[in-house]
Amino acid sequence: MADKDEKKKDRNRSVDPAVLEVLAKTEGSGLESAYDRYLKMQPQCNFGETGVCCHVCIQGPCRITKKADKGICGATAYTIVARNLVRHALGGCAAHSDHGLHASLLAREVSEGHAPDYEIKDTKKLYAVAERLGVSTEGKDDKAILKELVAIALEDFNRLDGKDSRWLSQVIIPERVERLKECNILPSSIHRTIAEAMAQTHMGMDADPVNLVFKALEVALADYIGEHIATSLSDILFGTPKPVVSEANMGVLDPDYVNIAVHGHNPILSEMIVQAARDMKGEAEAVGAKGIKCMGICCTGNEILMRQGVPILTNFASQELAIMTGAVDAMVVDIQCIMPGIQAVAECFHTRIVTTMPSAKIPGSYYVDFDDSRAMEKAREVIEIAIGAFKERNKEISIPQVKNKVVAGFSLEALLDIFAAVNPEKPIKVLTDAIESGELRGVCLLAGCNNLKRIHDQNHSVIAQELAKNNVFLVATGCAAQTYAKFGMLNSDAVDKYAGDGLKAFLNRLNEANKGKLTEKLPLVFHMGSCVDNSRAYDLMTCMAEELQMDTPKIPYAASAPEAMSEKAIAIGCWAVSLGMPVHVGVVPPVPGSPLVDGIALQIAQDVYGGYFIWETDPLESAKKILAALDERTWKLKVHKMAKEQYETEALSKTW
Amino acid sequence: MADKDEKKKDRNRSVDPAVLEVLAKTEGSGLESAYDRYLKMQPQCNFGETGVCCHVCIQGPCRITKKADKGICGATAYTIVARNLVRHALGGCAAHSDHGLHASLLAREVSEGHAPDYEIKDTKKLYAVAERLGVSTEGKDDKAILKELVAIALEDFNRLDGKDSRWLSQVIIPERVERLKECNILPSSIHRTIAEAMAQTHMGMDADPVNLVFKALEVALADYIGEHIATSLSDILFGTPKPVVSEANMGVLDPDYVNIAVHGHNPILSEMIVQAARDMKGEAEAVGAKGIKCMGICCTGNEILMRQGVPILTNFASQELAIMTGAVDAMVVDIQCIMPGIQAVAECFHTRIVTTMPSAKIPGSYYVDFDDSRAMEKAREVIEIAIGAFKERNKEISIPQVKNKVVAGFSLEALLDIFAAVNPEKPIKVLTDAIESGELRGVCLLAGCNNLKRIHDQNHSVIAQELAKNNVFLVATGCAAQTYAKFGMLNSDAVDKYAGDGLKAFLNRLNEANKGKLTEKLPLVFHMGSCVDNSRAYDLMTCMAEELQMDTPKIPYAASAPEAMSEKAIAIGCWAVSLGMPVHVGVVPPVPGSPLVDGIALQIAQDVYGGYFIWETDPLESAKKILAALDERTWKLKVHKMAKEQYETEALSKTW
Repeated sequence: MADKDEKKKDRNRSVDPAVLEVLAKTEGSGLESAYDRYLKMQPQCNFGETGVCCHVCIQGPCRITKKADKGICGATAYTIVARNLVRHALGGCAAHSDHGLHASLLAREVSEGHAPDYEIKDTKKLYAVAERLGVSTEGKDDKAILKELVAIALEDFNRLDGKDSRWLSQVIIPERVERLKECNILPSSIHRTIAEAMAQTHMGMDADPVNLVFKALEVALADYIGEHIATSLSDILFGTPKPVVSEANMGVLDPDYVNIAVHGHNPILSEMIVQAARDMKGEAEAVGAKGIKCMGICCTGNEILMRQGVPILTNFASQELAIMTGAVDAMVVDIQCIMPGIQAVAECFHTRIVTTMPSAKIPGSYYVDFDDSRAMEKAREVIEIAIGAFKERNKEISIPQVKNKVVAGFSLEALLDIFAAVNPEKPIKVLTDAIESGELRGVCLLAGCNNLKRIHDQNHSVIAQELAKNNVFLVATGCAAQTYAKFGMLNSDAVDKYAGDGLKAFLNRLNEANKGKLTEKLPLVFHMGSCVDNSRAYDLMTCMAEELQMDTPKIPYAASAPEAMSEKAIAIGCWAVSLGMPVHVGVVPPVPGSPLVDGIALQIAQDVYGGYFIWETDPLESAKKILAALDERTWKLKVHKMAKEQYETEALSKTW
Repeated sequence: MADKDEKKKDRNRSVDPAVLEVLAKTEGSGLESAYDRYLKMQPQCNFGETGVCCHVCIQGPCRITKKADKGICGATAYTIVARNLVRHALGGCAAHSDHGLHASLLAREVSEGHAPDYEIKDTKKLYAVAERLGVSTEGKDDKAILKELVAIALEDFNRLDGKDSRWLSQVIIPERVERLKECNILPSSIHRTIAEAMAQTHMGMDADPVNLVFKALEVALADYIGEHIATSLSDILFGTPKPVVSEANMGVLDPDYVNIAVHGHNPILSEMIVQAARDMKGEAEAVGAKGIKCMGICCTGNEILMRQGVPILTNFASQELAIMTGAVDAMVVDIQCIMPGIQAVAECFHTRIVTTMPSAKIPGSYYVDFDDSRAMEKAREVIEIAIGAFKERNKEISIPQVKNKVVAGFSLEALLDIFAAVNPEKPIKVLTDAIESGELRGVCLLAGCNNLKRIHDQNHSVIAQELAKNNVFLVATGCAAQTYAKFGMLNSDAVDKYAGDGLKAFLNRLNEANKGKLTEKLPLVFHMGSCVDNSRAYDLMTCMAEELQMDTPKIPYAASAPEAMSEKAIAIGCWAVSLGMPVHVGVVPPVPGSPLVDGIALQIAQDVYGGYFIWETDPLESAKKILAALDERTWKLKVHKMAKEQYETEALSKTW
């Protein structure tokens, strides 16, 4: 009995009340989700978890043990762990840059007047990106400017001349560019870096852990380029996000509507789906629905929340559970983080899984080959499938009545607009001053996935609450941001509930200054977008570094991936480190199997790049360590400022 | 006691007498090699070996068991196995194409008059490649032609316009191009294919095993392009191999000389080393040596054997054992298949390990950053390290007195030259006629690595002997070819010893016709080169298909990788299947964990591509299965020919 209770407790690995309700209702029903499969998978392989399982040749797999302290080829734990790290970063880089390439190729079509369903929506952003990249806009029409930007982007994908990435060199501060060059990790081009790193980790290639870890960082920087391109071009094509009000969690499902969950990462698809859904209200009404409701899961959900105010249904871990409500008519997916498990669940309901990309199919799903040149036609095809499914609803619908108000849409541009109400000359100074004055202890980016090795959403929510209490300015992306959306932490009630006095004062000052400009008070956590939009969060750090005239390792800005899961998270973590951030990860990645590589990640990285990793799985301990990392930098910042003032005073006295 | 004997028997996992001698001499000495580590690694992980271990996200690793029949995300065995297969093919493709890219970039330097230590050595090949690729040579100088070829090659690396690979489309027969297009697996460019495939195997991407397996084939075809470019450009820069006499196995070490083992894959380095060694005889004599002897391990050994007649020291599995003779002064390595274990062994002797490539370093080794633009200077630096080591020899030298005569250098061009002595109009008809007449049962390419899951060299040697006995025309590459070199199977004595009557008659006819032209009688097995030179072996199949006017699946031509080990071998196997070959693999790759993917590899592939895999670990059984595959095609060929003749006769009678 005790055992059964223990088990039950384990299956309920979430702190999301909607998730717990669905888990309770489906217990014993035979419906299987990741929560069940996680239990069945225990215990997981310790060799794999610590990184000492090598599978790069078929003489293996080899695993490092006391008895066998080297692989058959002689590779030691440090080689194996470092090689696996490179390949993980590679997977992430390839995924993000694939997304960036898709955006680039679509933008090229748009610039050439093809892809009639897309257009340049944000000319201001177009000009801003052009300026940052050093592209003259004078006397050029928008399409010509876009064409030039796309050319720079595409060259950053396929350059073979060995020159430095132009995109990266322009969007980060010169001090960072220099450091990356000194360490020989500034990528030349994304695709060549991917190919080289894959070759470098082939059997009998690199055995040097430092060389390998540095390659992982280069790969990660290529990932950053891909992300930055994806964000920039998406803003140009779909608009840069501005504050928007919406809601989140499974309560957004409405049994009277055709409910379409849009899941994946790419706004190129979801923007069209949302538009088509608005246009096709009549078709839905014709089958007895009140209309069509779109709602998002994972990052494509973030994209359409940020730009269209579309509600969030749920985040990664619970994607299958949304279907178990019986109220999802179609789940339309594009790329990345789509559990194959959704298909089996959907087959127990009337729900249609619609796959749309040639690189992400699921056997048994409906497949609509989404073609950018016929985007709206394809989107309508998808909506028709959903409407068809609505007619075939055949099971009891049971929707957890849980949802929260969300204020999202905080692109860097939107944040700076808000700061500008206090300091129109130097908006970012509002933030840096608050840190220098001690009102805020720094900035923390909360990013990344869910991972059932942790209780779903617990690390996300507890860490954010602790940091807020301790006056950290919080920005969030990805599935982390969706936790905050679901939990009511993306609205101003949460400020009253969780923020420390400093953070409260800071936000109130902004609210006051923006009175009349903003319809909603500011939230506790600022939702900056999808996982490619971690580029926005790093742009914020760049902006602070430019204002403070310091290299990024001096900026009190940390990142945390409380429930990291995917290779993309590893890539993001690695570029964040090489770009100067302390990076907390709440699920220990497969590194500790080599104390040497672990040491590089946790300590040596700081000496070389200023950024470093912190592995910590406990949420309260995590918050403490993040705060310590911020405090160290804030303290140094103050010392630095005092020293500067003293120097200036002395210099002044000497002049006298 | 029985147990100890059993163990001893296990450690002696080789049929190479030189290897067995070194193993015997070093037993109990504390010197460790792959033979020891293989034993220590037993038992190996069955999840990994069958392909059902998934490590693409850090929610895992997941492994498919009876209890847990899906990964935490819901990925089934077929998704996991197929995804792993793609990533293995990816590693191989990246490795080979990295080599091809290096050759292309060097060729570009040469075409622009940089890289003064390199030149266009083979104008005939330059023109032949130009013709095949449809590049006009009229009125152009050699460098201009080379520049155009390089431009085509580089575009095949970095094309983003989505058009088909130009190189591939030109070097295989049109029927194959059509089939690959129909199945949507003709690559556009190498780097984009690598990046896309990596993205496609990210967590939550493709779950469809057929889509994934097809992607693995596309990746493998990109590998083929890289190999073909590497071979073509190496021939242009270093000369197309012609028949050459040398010797092989550890007996080639000479205690009186500075012995330099050149190990890895890239002739760009080894060609310079060989040349520098010839120039620096004086420096060696100055320290008391009789001179400098270069000798090869792995494919760079094949490259310099084929073009310079440099002897073979040993092959992959026994690379560390060469050092244990105490006679190797330096082991100079470039890329791929370099066991990190060589360093620890070298440290017990005076031997210097010299790494030369930024992507393949070994902690503790000497590192000479090989720079194409100062190639000879760098090569001399390497030789100086070897001469320095010679002075520090400090241990007893014990060289197994085992070596055999080798006749190698059989590029396709060289083979056709030999056939031309019989049929100057249509040289290849000599081979196809011999098959149609029943004299030969077909052609088999013996390729690939060593893998200590098999007794070292046993599968290679036994399978070749069985096939020779059964009148199969044998070509070989890579470490397979080195087995035959070491075992005296690359000379005419082996013909007397092993060849069946048909093969004997065929070779004798060629010997007769080439009397006076060739200084040596033809060998049992024709050494076609390194592992990138599997492209030569496939060019032979293309040539046969063109002569017979049939698509490749009708050509009695099989491939075998009796001791496959590396990801490159997986890539090669996959392109060989998609290009129409039955492909035997003597070490079961991690596929059988999914009966579905296994079925695609073993059966469905044949329906779609004509090629298919055969997994068989026993050498005699392997030979039987290869023969059966050849016989099926030879039989069909005869039926086809008879039908054609009958049709023509009937058509003729109708005309009457």
